[in-house]
Amino acid sequence: MNEPIKKIAVLTSGGDAPGMNAAIRAVVRACTYYRVDCIGVYRGYQGLIEGDFEMLSARHVSNIINKGGTILKSARSEEFKTVEGRAKAYENLKKAGVGALVIIGGDGTFTGGLKFIEEFNFPVVGIPGTIDNDIYGTDNTIGYDTALNTVVEVIDKIRDTASSHNRLFFIEVMGRDAGFIALNTGIGAGAEEILIPEKNLGLDRLVESLDKSREKGKTSSIVVVSEGDKIGKNVFELADYIKEKYPFYDIRVSVLGHMQRGGSPSCYDRVLASRLGVAAVEALLDRTSGVMVGVTNNEVTSVGFNKAIKMNHDINEELLKVAEITSV
Amino acid sequence: MNEPIKKIAVLTSGGDAPGMNAAIRAVVRACTYYRVDCIGVYRGYQGLIEGDFEMLSARHVSNIINKGGTILKSARSEEFKTVEGRAKAYENLKKAGVGALVIIGGDGTFTGGLKFIEEFNFPVVGIPGTIDNDIYGTDNTIGYDTALNTVVEVIDKIRDTASSHNRLFFIEVMGRDAGFIALNTGIGAGAEEILIPEKNLGLDRLVESLDKSREKGKTSSIVVVSEGDKIGKNVFELADYIKEKYPFYDIRVSVLGHMQRGGSPSCYDRVLASRLGVAAVEALLDRTSGVMVGVTNNEVTSVGFNKAIKMNHDINEELLKVAEITSV
Amino acid sequence: MNEPIKKIAVLTSGGDAPGMNAAIRAVVRACTYYRVDCIGVYRGYQGLIEGDFEMLSARHVSNIINKGGTILKSARSEEFKTVEGRAKAYENLKKAGVGALVIIGGDGTFTGGLKFIEEFNFPVVGIPGTIDNDIYGTDNTIGYDTALNTVVEVIDKIRDTASSHNRLFFIEVMGRDAGFIALNTGIGAGAEEILIPEKNLGLDRLVESLDKSREKGKTSSIVVVSEGDKIGKNVFELADYIKEKYPFYDIRVSVLGHMQRGGSPSCYDRVLASRLGVAAVEALLDRTSGVMVGVTNNEVTSVGFNKAIKMNHDINEELLKVAEITSV
Amino acid sequence: MNEPIKKIAVLTSGGDAPGMNAAIRAVVRACTYYRVDCIGVYRGYQGLIEGDFEMLSARHVSNIINKGGTILKSARSEEFKTVEGRAKAYENLKKAGVGALVIIGGDGTFTGGLKFIEEFNFPVVGIPGTIDNDIYGTDNTIGYDTALNTVVEVIDKIRDTASSHNRLFFIEVMGRDAGFIALNTGIGAGAEEILIPEKNLGLDRLVESLDKSREKGKTSSIVVVSEGDKIGKNVFELADYIKEKYPFYDIRVSVLGHMQRGGSPSCYDRVLASRLGVAAVEALLDRTSGVMVGVTNNEVTSVGFNKAIKMNHDINEELLKVAEITSV
Repeated sequence: MNEPIKKIAVLTSGGDAPGMNAAIRAVVRACTYYRVDCIGVYRGYQGLIEGDFEMLSARHVSNIINKGGTILKSARSEEFKTVEGRAKAYENLKKAGVGALVIIGGDGTFTGGLKFIEEFNFPVVGIPGTIDNDIYGTDNTIGYDTALNTVVEVIDKIRDTASSHNRLFFIEVMGRDAGFIALNTGIGAGAEEILIPEKNLGLDRLVESLDKSREKGKTSSIVVVSEGDKIGKNVFELADYIKEKYPFYDIRVSVLGHMQRGGSPSCYDRVLASRLGVAAVEALLDRTSGVMVGVTNNEVTSVGFNKAIKMNHDINEELLKVAEITSV
Repeated sequence: MNEPIKKIAVLTSGGDAPGMNAAIRAVVRACTYYRVDCIGVYRGYQGLIEGDFEMLSARHVSNIINKGGTILKSARSEEFKTVEGRAKAYENLKKAGVGALVIIGGDGTFTGGLKFIEEFNFPVVGIPGTIDNDIYGTDNTIGYDTALNTVVEVIDKIRDTASSHNRLFFIEVMGRDAGFIALNTGIGAGAEEILIPEKNLGLDRLVESLDKSREKGKTSSIVVVSEGDKIGKNVFELADYIKEKYPFYDIRVSVLGHMQRGGSPSCYDRVLASRLGVAAVEALLDRTSGVMVGVTNNEVTSVGFNKAIKMNHDINEELLKVAEITSV
Repeated sequence: MNEPIKKIAVLTSGGDAPGMNAAIRAVVRACTYYRVDCIGVYRGYQGLIEGDFEMLSARHVSNIINKGGTILKSARSEEFKTVEGRAKAYENLKKAGVGALVIIGGDGTFTGGLKFIEEFNFPVVGIPGTIDNDIYGTDNTIGYDTALNTVVEVIDKIRDTASSHNRLFFIEVMGRDAGFIALNTGIGAGAEEILIPEKNLGLDRLVESLDKSREKGKTSSIVVVSEGDKIGKNVFELADYIKEKYPFYDIRVSVLGHMQRGGSPSCYDRVLASRLGVAAVEALLDRTSGVMVGVTNNEVTSVGFNKAIKMNHDINEELLKVAEITSV
Repeated sequence: MNEPIKKIAVLTSGGDAPGMNAAIRAVVRACTYYRVDCIGVYRGYQGLIEGDFEMLSARHVSNIINKGGTILKSARSEEFKTVEGRAKAYENLKKAGVGALVIIGGDGTFTGGLKFIEEFNFPVVGIPGTIDNDIYGTDNTIGYDTALNTVVEVIDKIRDTASSHNRLFFIEVMGRDAGFIALNTGIGAGAEEILIPEKNLGLDRLVESLDKSREKGKTSSIVVVSEGDKIGKNVFELADYIKEKYPFYDIRVSVLGHMQRGGSPSCYDRVLASRLGVAAVEALLDRTSGVMVGVTNNEVTSVGFNKAIKMNHDINEELLKVAEITSV
């Protein structure tokens, strides 16, 4: 590990997120700037195992900063979960003369990275890229801000038709274990009620809230539901439950789904990704390994993979109160 | 019917569509321009029965041209389907001094209007407002162009994530009896296959097409499905069917739903709605009744309600061929 | 000219327009479908002269249907205006085995194409791609619909701030010789006044209109001005003129400029471009030459280059009236 | 000042910013929640002087969270800069039974508020609403994030046409004294060079950078220029200077102007505005005065008006480096 790093590889893994391309671009250009070569690995860890590599120059990543998805593609790799798979990956990196690795993704990505470091003492730095914002060690993950905007724009459209017909809409947004998207878009879209996994308020509370809304003369309502809500019902069951209780409601359900992962990244996500791409390369060249770079309080920071994986962001209680007050 | 019309009422009925507000605005301002009063009727035919009226001045409709939904709201009215309901509506109009009525909506709206004319010899002119573009007598209905843009923008986002993960997506778009949205957005979004109610090509054809796509090296695919497809399966059943046949496909389903009805109207829809709002008022002042105004070959035209309701747009065979060729 | 066409070249020329990539894609894929080769020519006629060619397969044009600009780039070519330049271009085409040429652009593009046919009897078919919609023989040029949406979206934003501050805005939009963009976006954005080159209404009329607006209680106003307006003043001089007359107006000027050329094409433009790309290839394979393909009354049509160049769309008088009525 | 506050007034002042309506809505609803009345003041301090007040209920602010501009309008008031003007304002507030005031705006707004407190010992709390992000005491001002997105979306469009024609664009963005918009959008849009007031790098540096870009084979370039750049030239002079030095460049200038102030707010701005609207009311009810509420490190904080006005955000040196590295 004492010879200078002359070549850095970069891959994206896990669910794609808007801004991943901006991060790839920044990694490649930071390599150019610091005069080391850069190699793109296709399809995440699976491409590492298969040696699916391509040299990337600064020009290769022109005009991708505003593109959704990831030009390096992403994939699950069962094989990388085995010792043999990881050994193959290590061999491929060695053969290609790669001295360090940047991994862009979420929890699962960093877990794989951690294993890889332990087994081969190979330098790896992570960049948080996922729309869920469920990673400890950074205020925002790349893609989260864009997803918030995508969701509120869609709910704005649904609100048009909800108001026109005096309807009640249940809208399911992403966030299996984390209600950040639901809570923030619920406030941002002016939802009447927000259901998130972190707070099981129970169905009684929802019913009570809908009752209040009606009393106050609201003729249409939006309920934002996190896909991972622990109310014990999915969004369709929820709608059925309410429908039974309030047959006069004209209820509709909308599951936003995968559109939340795509789209051109917001300015915030592009800048965040650019900062973290540069920071990851600088960290590796500084002989750092086993950490995820992030932005905390508007400064670049880093945190060990083990912390990034195990610890959680807490739901901000103040935001819950703001949600309650502004839906009065 | 020989006394001059001094007051015109306007209502929106059926599913809301982007551009309805632009049409209302044009009706109100044409009334101002031609110095007749204008009354807005809330919640469609139901508001007609309940006398839910409001005088609208040119200033009331400022800054609504770019808003989705309908400020006059829309609703279904079972009561208007009865003679008694319609009689009440007629009484309310007479009492308010209204001499003619503009109705904005689709098939069902015009069917109601036709009945009303037959029974009370009351002047009514229609404006086609529905995203489905399934009305005879106009090249485009108000809202259709906006819905097309909304859908392709969403599919563009889904394409980002489909490409990143080499996935197959089934995307359900609106159009219960008409495949116009599916066909045009399928071409516009570069879908690999398009399923519409007018052409039951059978599942074999879909399977064959997916086979070909794979052979050509396409790693991700988008299939756009009209909600009214007559393939005999809904979009989830379709996905299951393909999944069983091709277990290696990573399949996802997305039902776009009500977001397709909302959003700020496109320039085309705003101009179309402005033209038709003016034309409807001019038609009524010219003593025309029982017709829907439309734009055909870029000129304002009109067609009897009976034709507008019964006849159909045909699917353009040339477009089907373009879809086939461009997804090669 | 009697041997079968085995290879078709395609180029974009003149100002770029959203949807040009969708047209290129359709040309390439129609070639694949009809089993002829396709060659992309970079930088328009200049690339023809320099032999800047690349074979394009169906996969080369994946994922470009939604991209603004043109992947083939565009450029002015003084050299192509000379006999020698055109001779070089012809030689390059012959050498490369190209049997026919698709040119995507506007007036100037077709003028070049016409000369080329006359001199070398080489088959050429044109596709109208320009945001100005100033080409005879098609209801819409590719890019026009997208530009309309771009402009109304920007004016919607300016309206927010105009209303908040009770300001008068002069907004200059593209259209040097044709007021189509100004007229349609003026109606679509609810402008109080619209100035276009085809109708010199004089400054008195503008002043009168602003007077009326104030009397009616409008506190903010939007005036859309075509860059080619023949009122004898540019938009800044106009603003100064009004400012002098009405010192109490808080006037701002906004020149929208080149952003109007860019952006992801609307669904309409993507479908139009797909239809015309296919139609151009089919026309060439049918031994047609010297025509521009277009869509008229929703059907694919064609018109001789000489007509497309010399004749004009007329401004629709009905639209002028709609503008007047809806700004009441 | 010891009697309980029963009525709170709210006004917007200075340049409008997206999210001001979301802040107004949150102030009104927090008042409802805490059972105090809320009064909206039209046209900022001028409306305070003229007594242009309206009682606002929770329903008044329905469906405004997603609207640009400010429903309360904004205006400059020379009169409020005089003792007499402020005395009138005070009288109006007393007469209306208003016990405290929320002011939404920037530097100038808070300067006025500070004077008002000093003279009348009247409780005032401020909310930072301006797109420029030039206020000390909050990480972001309301409207800033939206403006960043608006600008990068426009530059993305300009990039389409710049790439198609191999052009050099100078794009002027807002920020008279602060380069935050230019720096962040420059990074986010992938600009080749960024000129901001805080760093006068001189024209030599710009020329050098353009030279490098050309050497690296970049055929089009975007230079983002802050309107307040202290390079000693405005954007048109800059373009002329470069044109003279490099006659072969095809140069265009675009001044983005007022569109940057408008548009539907981003999710971030809506949530920020909701938090600060609630926080301002809570602060007043807690007997706080003379402070601006903000969000620092994702927590609600407050800072004295004197600090908010006099101190500055510093330009982040790390961001300057990221800009340099990623434009390599």
